[in-house]
Amino acid sequence: MADNTQELYNRYIELMRKITDIKKAADVLQWDQETYLPRKSSDIRGQQIATLTETAHHFFSSEQLGNILTELAGKNDLTENQKKNCELTLEDYLKNKKYSSQFVRKLSEQINKTFHAWIKAREMNSFSVFENELNVLITLKKQESELLGYEAHPYNAHLNEYEKGCTVHFLDNVFEPLLPFLNSLLGKIKSQAPVDNAFLQQYFPKQKQWEWGMYLIQQLGFDFDSGRQDISEHPFTTSFSPTDVRLTTRIDENDFANMTWSCIHEAGHGLYEQGLPVDQYGLPLGEYCSLGIHESQSRLWENNVGRSEAFWQNYFPKLQEFFPEQFKTTSSEIFYKGINKIEPGLIRTEADEITYHFHVYIRYELEKDLFEGNLKTTDIPAYWNEMYLKYLGIKVPDDNHGCLQDIHWSHGSFGYFPTYSLGSLYAAQFYTYINKMIPGLEEDMEKGSVLKILQWLKQYIYPYGRKYTSDELCIRITGESLNASFFKDHLLRKFGNMYTL
Amino acid sequence: MADNTQELYNRYIELMRKITDIKKAADVLQWDQETYLPRKSSDIRGQQIATLTETAHHFFSSEQLGNILTELAGKNDLTENQKKNCELTLEDYLKNKKYSSQFVRKLSEQINKTFHAWIKAREMNSFSVFENELNVLITLKKQESELLGYEAHPYNAHLNEYEKGCTVHFLDNVFEPLLPFLNSLLGKIKSQAPVDNAFLQQYFPKQKQWEWGMYLIQQLGFDFDSGRQDISEHPFTTSFSPTDVRLTTRIDENDFANMTWSCIHEAGHGLYEQGLPVDQYGLPLGEYCSLGIHESQSRLWENNVGRSEAFWQNYFPKLQEFFPEQFKTTSSEIFYKGINKIEPGLIRTEADEITYHFHVYIRYELEKDLFEGNLKTTDIPAYWNEMYLKYLGIKVPDDNHGCLQDIHWSHGSFGYFPTYSLGSLYAAQFYTYINKMIPGLEEDMEKGSVLKILQWLKQYIYPYGRKYTSDELCIRITGESLNASFFKDHLLRKFGNMYTL
Repeated sequence: MADNTQELYNRYIELMRKITDIKKAADVLQWDQETYLPRKSSDIRGQQIATLTETAHHFFSSEQLGNILTELAGKNDLTENQKKNCELTLEDYLKNKKYSSQFVRKLSEQINKTFHAWIKAREMNSFSVFENELNVLITLKKQESELLGYEAHPYNAHLNEYEKGCTVHFLDNVFEPLLPFLNSLLGKIKSQAPVDNAFLQQYFPKQKQWEWGMYLIQQLGFDFDSGRQDISEHPFTTSFSPTDVRLTTRIDENDFANMTWSCIHEAGHGLYEQGLPVDQYGLPLGEYCSLGIHESQSRLWENNVGRSEAFWQNYFPKLQEFFPEQFKTTSSEIFYKGINKIEPGLIRTEADEITYHFHVYIRYELEKDLFEGNLKTTDIPAYWNEMYLKYLGIKVPDDNHGCLQDIHWSHGSFGYFPTYSLGSLYAAQFYTYINKMIPGLEEDMEKGSVLKILQWLKQYIYPYGRKYTSDELCIRITGESLNASFFKDHLLRKFGNMYTL
Repeated sequence: MADNTQELYNRYIELMRKITDIKKAADVLQWDQETYLPRKSSDIRGQQIATLTETAHHFFSSEQLGNILTELAGKNDLTENQKKNCELTLEDYLKNKKYSSQFVRKLSEQINKTFHAWIKAREMNSFSVFENELNVLITLKKQESELLGYEAHPYNAHLNEYEKGCTVHFLDNVFEPLLPFLNSLLGKIKSQAPVDNAFLQQYFPKQKQWEWGMYLIQQLGFDFDSGRQDISEHPFTTSFSPTDVRLTTRIDENDFANMTWSCIHEAGHGLYEQGLPVDQYGLPLGEYCSLGIHESQSRLWENNVGRSEAFWQNYFPKLQEFFPEQFKTTSSEIFYKGINKIEPGLIRTEADEITYHFHVYIRYELEKDLFEGNLKTTDIPAYWNEMYLKYLGIKVPDDNHGCLQDIHWSHGSFGYFPTYSLGSLYAAQFYTYINKMIPGLEEDMEKGSVLKILQWLKQYIYPYGRKYTSDELCIRITGESLNASFFKDHLLRKFGNMYTL
């Protein structure tokens, strides 16, 4: 590489790292807000985050960066990875230029207001407390659709933000054949003898659950020298660099399942973030591929690993050591069947592997209608409750167990939920290949080792960052694009063994 | 005020708030680094803080701000407070312009490295682990003296940073008459029967101490909806706005005194920060007056209140409820005398009201010599140990109990320590007037109310921010400049009652 190109590329790196430092600082302030911030400081914190967001935007839309990127685009002596970084950054840059500083600040401030309205609404168990701020935010998000531009559907602009190339057309094609399959499977299972999972609703002291969760996360390979876990209202994972990945969880003393699988889920995200190449900090190749792939990582650990018979073969006795009283009379068979109980419920994050996707689908349909203008924010609770009755056959008792349960809208994340379902599908497809490529994996897991899975992910997924799109990555690993049949096969095999289907 | 001036002043506020948001974000990252940061992330965190510091500097030395300030300087229709804000900002601006962006970044990065070297050196109890990074930092700080400019002594440039107008000449004039007085008092007390404070060195469980510390802080009036407390290696207070003030403490399970008075001390800082006018956020009138005044707040609560007989009249029975076993056989007289035991010791933060100032003086002399070039960093431990023998008559057993004990140098804070002594002197002077102005204060305290003190501070000190210099503030309140005789009188009265002097 000629000196001039090298120099130019280094200037590009330097600029990108500074912009990333500022973005990551905003993420630290956001994390702090959701874990430790004193109550009265929400307004000023909102302004502080808005200033950082606006400042990062300011530098990221500077002419200086634009000129460097244009110049780099004309260079032939960049390595393949360098070229990819420059290409992706140019793409991001051009998109970023579509936003004015004022709009960025306005959006950031409104997100803060909406987040605090959500917290308050949760406290009061009343959507109407949230509705006004949410409405203002949705208006801004609709303006964002127009700024970004889209084909066919304004919602596509947002879907594309989380999963490049994702559209209403693509998702309809995923959900339409999937839902009848899930519905039929659900029907067959419901016709069988009910499963007992009452042992999950005992009293599990907070501190003991915390220790158990920390133990589990550490067992999965999460590096506590490069990350930590804290408590928040809604579990999430955020990363300030691969050496500083923060998980959060929440603890329900009367429900063992709540924290355990949220810990595994967030650890799946966290392992991915810790595995991203640290030398690419600030550059696209240091970022995650897409949210669908991110979710494939959390869902893979949560379900394919964390709800598998082989995993609990080893960890159930450990669990009994943590909670000897609570699991005294529970056999490992009862435990395994109980933690996989299929039962329509109110809360997405607590849903089983089958009904989960109805939760996602309902939010998807609702958001689609919001962006089409067919649904007003005031009508969300009624719409929500109707859909839950229609798809899951259950009555929603109040807003906290209904349309207030997720944090996402309060963060301005519309178009995010579908990636949860995509994640499950990718996870099943990847996990099939992991099993093919690691002979004796189940036996290893029964003996307590899940580290081969982490090693595999470290080899085939983590190191690439955003180098490949999710589709390209999927083809590289499995030889084909996303294919729901892997997920269907997984369910048929798993629940076929558990029930007479 | 003409529309044009109002508009201009609003633009000034807007700019200053953005710059402050970025500085405060750096403070959040710094706080996080000292409380929760995963071990492996120190390098990247250092870069992130450096970027924020550099970015704040970039905006704060922009021509845009300079032009606004120059224009505002010519306006006659500003209010007195507005005028003061503009004047002080212009002063800060001109000082800031003396630094290049590169120097700001270099200094910030070096501070990070030095901080981590200090942490490591503390772990290994070895100054030599710290020495190299400290040396680089001191070289930068000497360059900073030259950048800032000074009269008479390069150390003056740094003294002035913490206490406007403070010089070696001024401090020599404070210390020279003070030390013989303290020495003579110390001699008289040492000739008396030794005081028993063995009850302080029992086993006090961590969690219980934590609860006690939190209780005390809350009793002093600290608002936990506008602040919090966490654990760190070295106790400190930082503020991200008056609605978000963070205290930290540390707990020694075998030493009751360590945490208790550090909690009171930091709460004193915290109350001041919570009391600054929030509507002046980002402007000089929203900032603290000087570090000497800041320390007067912490020392006032720690010593004048927190080591007084009246205070413990009420709180000793409460303490006995927290630790019934440990204080079963301790009388309130023994307790009061024990917590005020005068005894030369190794650790500044644990020192009594008399010997404390020798700790400060030693650091002051040492720093003066460093900046004069008469002392090399490699020679610090030998110098330190010699001075402790000379002034306090004690042998320093190792670096952790010697020159590694304070965090300040690792933060690049040279010239900071003298403000601790100034703080004690101001505290005594203010407290004399508080007692004059609040009749029956002692009786109130004996009955458990310290809130009148807070009310007084909220009236006479907190609301003014940087409006007055420490000298002006002192004159406004007490009718004269700093006068050490108040402090001497306080000691003579207090220890005269306790001993036969």
